[in-house]
Amino acid sequence: MSEEASSDPELFFKRHVFVCTNERVDGHPRGSCARKGSVELRSYMKTRAKELGIDGVRINSAGCLDRCELGPTVVVYPEGVWYACKTKEDFEEVLVRHVQNGERVPHLMLQPEDE
Amino acid sequence: MSEEASSDPELFFKRHVFVCTNERVDGHPRGSCARKGSVELRSYMKTRAKELGIDGVRINSAGCLDRCELGPTVVVYPEGVWYACKTKEDFEEVLVRHVQNGERVPHLMLQPEDE
Repeated sequence: MSEEASSDPELFFKRHVFVCTNERVDGHPRGSCARKGSVELRSYMKTRAKELGIDGVRINSAGCLDRCELGPTVVVYPEGVWYACKTKEDFEEVLVRHVQNGERVPHLMLQPEDE
Repeated sequence: MSEEASSDPELFFKRHVFVCTNERVDGHPRGSCARKGSVELRSYMKTRAKELGIDGVRINSAGCLDRCELGPTVVVYPEGVWYACKTKEDFEEVLVRHVQNGERVPHLMLQPEDE
């Protein structure tokens, strides 16, 4: 028996953000998002989401998203749009424009072929 | 300037699975997914995805998904469908039916109102 997508429940989070917080040892050839500050940057985004009163979203940490060289990496679902965010300002822009307002932030966006 | 969803890049992962691997101290009233075996169960799912040759997907660990009481919890994007998976058999079923074949597994699925 196959169930169809048409019967899927409503989204539990209107937008669900995953920030890679994977940490590798110093000197690893791929680097890692945590070594580029992603743990603190994720906390900042989470705090700002609360301060701005953005309801129905969640700013999660995630294990390695496998795009380490581009990090810190962020993916916003259900859209599946990826961003490389290196500063608090980058996180703030993705938070306000995409997560809160449903827009996109082209200058921070990753394309599938980016590596 | 607002960018529209119509210009979104293709999905980087055809299906992106997040398994909560958050761990709380023993006796915490909400419990935690890691205390219910989610770390090992996530590893199992990841290994099985590779063994089955399921390409273009990723089986990620995630920080607390905030549905602890129902855990171990799993969410499959871009569909945003949630499951409660307690055993290897549960993870296998979600992996093969939903992640690989695009079906749904109603008897493991969470509804937005579940808590």
